[in-house]
Amino acid sequence: MSRALNEIRPSLPAHWYYDDEHYQRELAAVWYRDWVCVGHRSELRRDGDYLVAKIGAQSVIITQAPDGKIRAWHNTCRHRGSLLCKESRGRFRNGRIVCPYHTWTYSTDGKLLATPGRLDADDFNHDDYSLFGVHVAGWKGFIFVNLSDTPKESLDTFLGAEKLYLANWPIESMHSVHREVITVNCNWKLFWENYSECYHCPRLHPELCKVMPVYREAVFDDADLPGWKPRFEGDRGFGRVADGASTWTMDGKTASPDLKGLSEEEREIGVVFSSVNGSMYVVGHPDYVRSVRIVPQGPEQIELVVDWMLPEDFGEVSDDLIEHITGLAKLVIRQDGEACELNQQGLKSPRFEQGVLVPQEYPLWDFHEWLRQRLNDL
Amino acid sequence: MSRALNEIRPSLPAHWYYDDEHYQRELAAVWYRDWVCVGHRSELRRDGDYLVAKIGAQSVIITQAPDGKIRAWHNTCRHRGSLLCKESRGRFRNGRIVCPYHTWTYSTDGKLLATPGRLDADDFNHDDYSLFGVHVAGWKGFIFVNLSDTPKESLDTFLGAEKLYLANWPIESMHSVHREVITVNCNWKLFWENYSECYHCPRLHPELCKVMPVYREAVFDDADLPGWKPRFEGDRGFGRVADGASTWTMDGKTASPDLKGLSEEEREIGVVFSSVNGSMYVVGHPDYVRSVRIVPQGPEQIELVVDWMLPEDFGEVSDDLIEHITGLAKLVIRQDGEACELNQQGLKSPRFEQGVLVPQEYPLWDFHEWLRQRLNDL
Amino acid sequence: MSRALNEIRPSLPAHWYYDDEHYQRELAAVWYRDWVCVGHRSELRRDGDYLVAKIGAQSVIITQAPDGKIRAWHNTCRHRGSLLCKESRGRFRNGRIVCPYHTWTYSTDGKLLATPGRLDADDFNHDDYSLFGVHVAGWKGFIFVNLSDTPKESLDTFLGAEKLYLANWPIESMHSVHREVITVNCNWKLFWENYSECYHCPRLHPELCKVMPVYREAVFDDADLPGWKPRFEGDRGFGRVADGASTWTMDGKTASPDLKGLSEEEREIGVVFSSVNGSMYVVGHPDYVRSVRIVPQGPEQIELVVDWMLPEDFGEVSDDLIEHITGLAKLVIRQDGEACELNQQGLKSPRFEQGVLVPQEYPLWDFHEWLRQRLNDL
Repeated sequence: MSRALNEIRPSLPAHWYYDDEHYQRELAAVWYRDWVCVGHRSELRRDGDYLVAKIGAQSVIITQAPDGKIRAWHNTCRHRGSLLCKESRGRFRNGRIVCPYHTWTYSTDGKLLATPGRLDADDFNHDDYSLFGVHVAGWKGFIFVNLSDTPKESLDTFLGAEKLYLANWPIESMHSVHREVITVNCNWKLFWENYSECYHCPRLHPELCKVMPVYREAVFDDADLPGWKPRFEGDRGFGRVADGASTWTMDGKTASPDLKGLSEEEREIGVVFSSVNGSMYVVGHPDYVRSVRIVPQGPEQIELVVDWMLPEDFGEVSDDLIEHITGLAKLVIRQDGEACELNQQGLKSPRFEQGVLVPQEYPLWDFHEWLRQRLNDL
Repeated sequence: MSRALNEIRPSLPAHWYYDDEHYQRELAAVWYRDWVCVGHRSELRRDGDYLVAKIGAQSVIITQAPDGKIRAWHNTCRHRGSLLCKESRGRFRNGRIVCPYHTWTYSTDGKLLATPGRLDADDFNHDDYSLFGVHVAGWKGFIFVNLSDTPKESLDTFLGAEKLYLANWPIESMHSVHREVITVNCNWKLFWENYSECYHCPRLHPELCKVMPVYREAVFDDADLPGWKPRFEGDRGFGRVADGASTWTMDGKTASPDLKGLSEEEREIGVVFSSVNGSMYVVGHPDYVRSVRIVPQGPEQIELVVDWMLPEDFGEVSDDLIEHITGLAKLVIRQDGEACELNQQGLKSPRFEQGVLVPQEYPLWDFHEWLRQRLNDL
Repeated sequence: MSRALNEIRPSLPAHWYYDDEHYQRELAAVWYRDWVCVGHRSELRRDGDYLVAKIGAQSVIITQAPDGKIRAWHNTCRHRGSLLCKESRGRFRNGRIVCPYHTWTYSTDGKLLATPGRLDADDFNHDDYSLFGVHVAGWKGFIFVNLSDTPKESLDTFLGAEKLYLANWPIESMHSVHREVITVNCNWKLFWENYSECYHCPRLHPELCKVMPVYREAVFDDADLPGWKPRFEGDRGFGRVADGASTWTMDGKTASPDLKGLSEEEREIGVVFSSVNGSMYVVGHPDYVRSVRIVPQGPEQIELVVDWMLPEDFGEVSDDLIEHITGLAKLVIRQDGEACELNQQGLKSPRFEQGVLVPQEYPLWDFHEWLRQRLNDL
C-alpha cells in the first residue's frame, strides 16, 4: 500500500543546506556517530593492505590485521600527530605501520612496537601510545566504520530492514569492476533527497523512464499508484523494469549471466534498493550490483563514489561489458548532479526559507524526521 | 558655486572596506533596500524575454509579462528551492517559467499554474505558491528593482535631482552597442569614491585630462575653481570638454551624429553625469551614452558592467565606431580599477584606521553621510 | 652536557596549529611585537632603495634614508590608505615616496612634503600626516623591524646568546648570491619544531647524515650522546661534520676559500647555528652562510626565504659554485617541508588533541615555554 502523504509537509530550513555551523552539527550528529561505509572487503585482500577514508575532517586507516580481520585507526601518529598514510590505498610492509616523520612503528593491531632512536625517558610506556582505534563492522562485504567511542547501536541494528532487501544478492563474493568518483556542488542532504523521490524522473530522466515505466508517473513504486494491488504474497509493489527489459542498461538488456541465488521475482523486478540514510545506497540488478557512497566535502560539496560490481569469479570483464552496465547509471547520475547543483544555488535565496514536500516525497519526510531526531540526540 | 570643503574631514573607518560582517550590514542597509539598476528595457524586447541579476546573495529574474510590463521574481522555486534560471538571459517559451527540477510551472506573472505529476494532497492550494515578487520600476528605460518588501520611497524620489541632469538625452530609445564586464578587487565604496573625485585625475588620467582640461586642476567642475562665475543663467559650472573637442573619445571628436533633443549648452559641455549613489552612473555625451553599474561580489570585489549606448534607429554600427567611442573610457576605467585595487590593499594595514578627505573630495563626504544614515536606519 | 629531558612532556594543543583565531593571537603576541628579520643590509645599497616586507597582515617599506640609515614605514598612505609600493623592491626617485593614487609625497624620512593639487583647507597641517613609522635595528647586516609602538626590548636583548655563536662570521660584508622562496603548507610553529630537533634525521635526511654522522643518532649535538666529554675548554658539544668533510655540501667539500676570521675550532666543526625563535635561523659554514626566514601566510601556510651568502668581494660566482653550495640544503629543506605538511594534515585529526615530546626534543619544550609566555603577556 502506498505510503504517500495526503497532505503537504514542510521541508527543512533552507540554511541547513549551506550554513557551515549547521554542517558541523550534522557531522557530529550523523557522520561522526553513525556507521559509514568506507569500501568493500574485496579491496583488502592480503594482510597489511589498507585503505584511507575521509569522513568530514577525519581520516581513517582501514587495514587487514594478521588474524585476517579488518581494523580501523585514526590516521595520526601518537607522537606529534603526523599523518601516517598519505596515499588513499597501499600496503603496510611486514605488517608494520611506520610513521613517515620519526618512524614510530605500530602493528596493524594498533600497538606501538618501537620508537627508533629515542633517548630514554623514565616514564615512557609503549602501551600508552597505541593508535586511536575506530569501530569497524561489515555487511555483505561492505566495510563500515563508526567514529563514536561507544557506538549507540550495532551496524546490524543501524541497517534495520534495509539489509533484508538484498539478502539474496551474493555481494560478499563480488568486487568492483569500475569506479567513478564525481564531485557535485551541493549539500549531502540534497543528493539524498534527490535519490529519495522520483517526482523529478519524468523531466530529468527520459532514458531511465524507458526502462522503468512507472517512473513516468513520477513515483518510484507501483504501490504508489492509485488502485495498486499485490501481484503475489508479500509483493511490496516495487517499481519494476519494462516488459521486455531485464536490468538497468540503456537498452534494458543484460549482457552477462544472472547472479546466483536470486528469486524468480527478484529477477523479474530487475532492480532492488538498499539504502543507508544519507550516506550510501546499493542497487541489486539481476546481472550486477551498483553501490553509491556520498562523501561530504563541506557544506556545499560532496564526492560520489560509484562502484559497479560483478562476481569475483566472473572471468575476464571486457570494456564493452563495462560500458554496457555503466552507461545508464552514469547518465542518470549526471542528470541528478546537475539538478542538485541548481537546487543548492536556488535555495540560497535569502527569500527562500523553507520548501514543501508533495505526497510522493514521503521518503524525504522520513529522512528529515530521522535527521531531526539525530540532531536532537546530540 | 563650489561646494568644496574648507576643512579636513575624516573618511570612513578602514575596516568598513573589508570586514565581512560590515559588508553584510551594507547589503542589508543599501543593496537589499534601495533601488538597484539591473539593466535596460531594450534588453527585453518580447514577452517572456528575461534577464537574471545578482544583487549580493540574491538572484532576481526580470521578465516581460504578457501585458508588456516588466516584472521581477526571486530566482527560486517555491517547491524545494531549485534555481529557476541558470543562464543570465533567455526567453521563457509560451510565457511559462518552468522549474528545471520538477517542472513546477509559473506564468510570467508569477502565478503557479501547474505541478505536473504531483499526487493529490487535500490542502494544496496553488495560490499559496506564487513566485516571490520583487518591486520593479523604470527611469529612462533603465530597469531598477528593490528587494525590500515595502520600499521606503519610490524610484523617482530615490533618484532625486540626479534624474534631471540627463532629462534631454533620449535614453529610452537607445540600446547598448557594446558591453564590458570588468572585475575589480576592491570594496564597492572605493570604486564609488574614486568616481566621486577628480583629485586623482592629473596623475592617473593624462589622456582624459587632454579632453577635460579642468581635470588637470584636480577638480571635476569649473565651479570648484577659485573665482568661477556662471557663464549663463542656471550654469552649474560643470566641467566641460576642451576647446576643439566635443565628446569623450581619444581625440575628443565625435564620429557620429549628435543625439536629438540636446540643448546647445549640453552639446557644448560635452559630458553630463547622473549618479545613483554607490551602484550606478550614467554619462551623457553629445553622440553617445555610457552607463556603469557596480555589482558587489563580496567585501573586496566588484564587477563593473559598462555599456555604451546609441539610438536604436542608428543603423549599422561599425567596429571602428565602437572602438572610437569606447577607447577613452576603457582606458580610464582600467586606470581607476588599478588605483582602487591599491587602495583596497593599503587600507588593510592594521595601522591605518581612518583616512582624511581634502576639500575637493566633498562628494565623498556626502556619500559617507548618506551611507551612515542608511546604516543608522537599519 | 646534554640538556635532554629525562621525561615525557606534552606538546602544544593541536588546534593551535590550525585555528585561525589562535593564529591571530600569535600574530599579536609574537609577530607584531617581536623583532622580525626582513632582509639584509646588502639589499639596500643606495639612498632611496627599498624593500617591502609582509608580516602577517602588515606590509612594511624598508628604505635607506639620505643619512644612509635604514628606516621603515607602514606601506599605506595617510590620505585614504592607498598602498604606496606595490613591488617587493625598487627605488624611490629623488628620495621621494609618492603615493600612486593622489601623489601625496613623502620624504624617505617619512615626512609629508607635498599634496599636489589639493584645494586649501584651513586646518591642514603637513606634520600631522607623516608616514606611520616602524622600529628598525640591525644585527650583522640583517635588518629587523618591530611593529610594536614601544618594543619591550632592544634587538640586542631579544637575540640574547644566539647572536654570539656567529660572532666571527663576517656577515656584515656578505650578500646573497642565491635565493629560493618556498611555500610550505604548514603552521609556522611546525617548521620551527622541525628545525629544532634531529629526531627525524635518520629517516628523513640520509644524505645529510653522511655529512653529519651524529645526526644518525637522532640528536643534533655530540653533547646529547651518552658519556660525551668536552674536547677543549668551552666546548659546547655541537654536532660536527664527518671526518674528511668540511662543510654542508653533497660531498662535504668546500669549493671556495674559507671565510676570514673564523677560529680553528669553528672551521673544524663546519656548521654553527644562530636561531631567532620561530622566525629565522642563520647557519655559518667555513665557506658560506645560509639564512632561512619563515614568513607566515596564514594559519596553515608559510613562505620560506632561503639565502646563500658569500663575501661581497668574492669576485665572480659561477653557476657551478652556486649549485655546489645550495644542493644539500635545498634537498634537506624539501624533505623537511614534506614532513611538515604531513604533520599539519595529521594533527588536524579531531581525535588528536596533543602530542608528546621525547627527551631529545627539549628545544621544542623551550620554544613552547617561550611562546606560552608571550601569549600570557598579551
